[in-house]
Amino acid sequence: MNVLAERLRAWQDEVSGALEAADRSGRFREDRWDRPGGGGGRSRVLEGAELFERAGVNYSEVHGELPESVASSMPGSGRRFLAVGVSLVLHPASPMVPTIHANFRYLERGEAFWFGGGADLTPYYLFEEDARHFHRTLKAACDRFDPSWYRRFKKDCDDYFFLKHRGEARGVGGIFFDYLQGDRERLAAGVQGLWSAFLPSYLPLLERRRDEPFGEAERQFQLMRRGRYVEFNLLYDRGTTFGLQTSGRIESILMSMPPLVRWEYAYEPAPGSREARLYEVLRRPRDWASEGP
Amino acid sequence: MNVLAERLRAWQDEVSGALEAADRSGRFREDRWDRPGGGGGRSRVLEGAELFERAGVNYSEVHGELPESVASSMPGSGRRFLAVGVSLVLHPASPMVPTIHANFRYLERGEAFWFGGGADLTPYYLFEEDARHFHRTLKAACDRFDPSWYRRFKKDCDDYFFLKHRGEARGVGGIFFDYLQGDRERLAAGVQGLWSAFLPSYLPLLERRRDEPFGEAERQFQLMRRGRYVEFNLLYDRGTTFGLQTSGRIESILMSMPPLVRWEYAYEPAPGSREARLYEVLRRPRDWASEGP
Repeated sequence: MNVLAERLRAWQDEVSGALEAADRSGRFREDRWDRPGGGGGRSRVLEGAELFERAGVNYSEVHGELPESVASSMPGSGRRFLAVGVSLVLHPASPMVPTIHANFRYLERGEAFWFGGGADLTPYYLFEEDARHFHRTLKAACDRFDPSWYRRFKKDCDDYFFLKHRGEARGVGGIFFDYLQGDRERLAAGVQGLWSAFLPSYLPLLERRRDEPFGEAERQFQLMRRGRYVEFNLLYDRGTTFGLQTSGRIESILMSMPPLVRWEYAYEPAPGSREARLYEVLRRPRDWASEGP
Repeated sequence: MNVLAERLRAWQDEVSGALEAADRSGRFREDRWDRPGGGGGRSRVLEGAELFERAGVNYSEVHGELPESVASSMPGSGRRFLAVGVSLVLHPASPMVPTIHANFRYLERGEAFWFGGGADLTPYYLFEEDARHFHRTLKAACDRFDPSWYRRFKKDCDDYFFLKHRGEARGVGGIFFDYLQGDRERLAAGVQGLWSAFLPSYLPLLERRRDEPFGEAERQFQLMRRGRYVEFNLLYDRGTTFGLQTSGRIESILMSMPPLVRWEYAYEPAPGSREARLYEVLRRPRDWASEGP
């Protein structure tokens, strides 16, 4: 566990360093915090910068006693738990650059332990080659460890990041896994392979799209779609719920909220528009890794 | 029930008429809709106007079969249900004018029936005389029917509109009641007395505060506090959950969302500021009806 925790902290350092370098203007602020019931974390936030309107990269290592209502839905027995992980959400300023979320975590309850996490991409304007690059990079990392992973994790991602009340996916998906059990050392290596694929899956999209021109209409569409992100996180997200129920640090849990958000009554994309093309893929998930050029 | 439904529709007309008159510039758009499982409604929204950035006044009358998970938490037996009500949320453009929510509803499940509803005020900048006027007007309406109501409903409101994860009330409260059972005709008259107090409780605040000057800092504080409104509605609100679980019309349910919202990492009001004065009352609810001049 200590080795894993150290590797996760090293990854947090690597990611925040790479994001600062990509941003060129912003600097992460770090807050170290303790959880009253046990453990703590280091939250890093970069706000109002050139590339990122908000970027949050959070490491936490919490332990103690779970509320019975939370414990009972998990593998293992008893109320003792431990959760170590890194969670990040990047909200770029430009609507041409996709929002991304990734999270990799290790949990124990009593004698049981498992891994969870994933990475998923939320574009506002769809560039098909970006969705393909993102999925293929993750698939390659999965395949190196277990050829059955990508297919399973991709489907679980589509199922998980789905807004039932809207009939829409949150974005173009990625990978999602939870309750991954087996040999601890082997799995830790596999999961590390996945998080190591995060930067290569996303940085090229930043570089390709950061100078893409856009206007006020595209900005307004981005703010409206960010509202769906908020709806997902507060209505469905397991990590958010887990954090709130285990009295995690509120500001670190809700670091995932976009900085500025709009709700519009009865929005419908104009037929044939770029916005309508996004809605098509949100309503019918595609097999990005295997299609296209 | 038909008489009650008619009175609720008449109240929707009265409220939307009064709000248009107060706004001076905006007009409500009406959408009539049918619910696939039974019933429907008429939603009215006014957006981007002088006084109201968004005002939603929704009438709905839905019936059919409840999902078992929803039914089992309610009085009565079986899955047949009926719900009739008016729900409104007003988001003024100016941070000096408080947001308000009100809802009055009648429900049946099998042989059981009950009333629910209330009204609560969410200021961004606190004017104590406004909170007092609001509470006193509601208290007078309660007292005319049952002298025990206000005390009970005021406390239930403070308990209900509370963001546990923030340790903050949503606003300065008001009244809240649910599962109000007894003689149907008598209760209908009492509840009508409450909804009739809505316009007199709120319109004077609009007139007092609409021309209050403010700047960009106050606007930004309003947008940030609206984020708490979103958190409450998506994490805790029973009406929102009920609507989503009974496949209500999404756009009408989420009409309560503020038009523009901001999340800020680790916000703290400056000591002694007007923002800090608001936080004091959010953290320690007061007895507005009986205190002060």
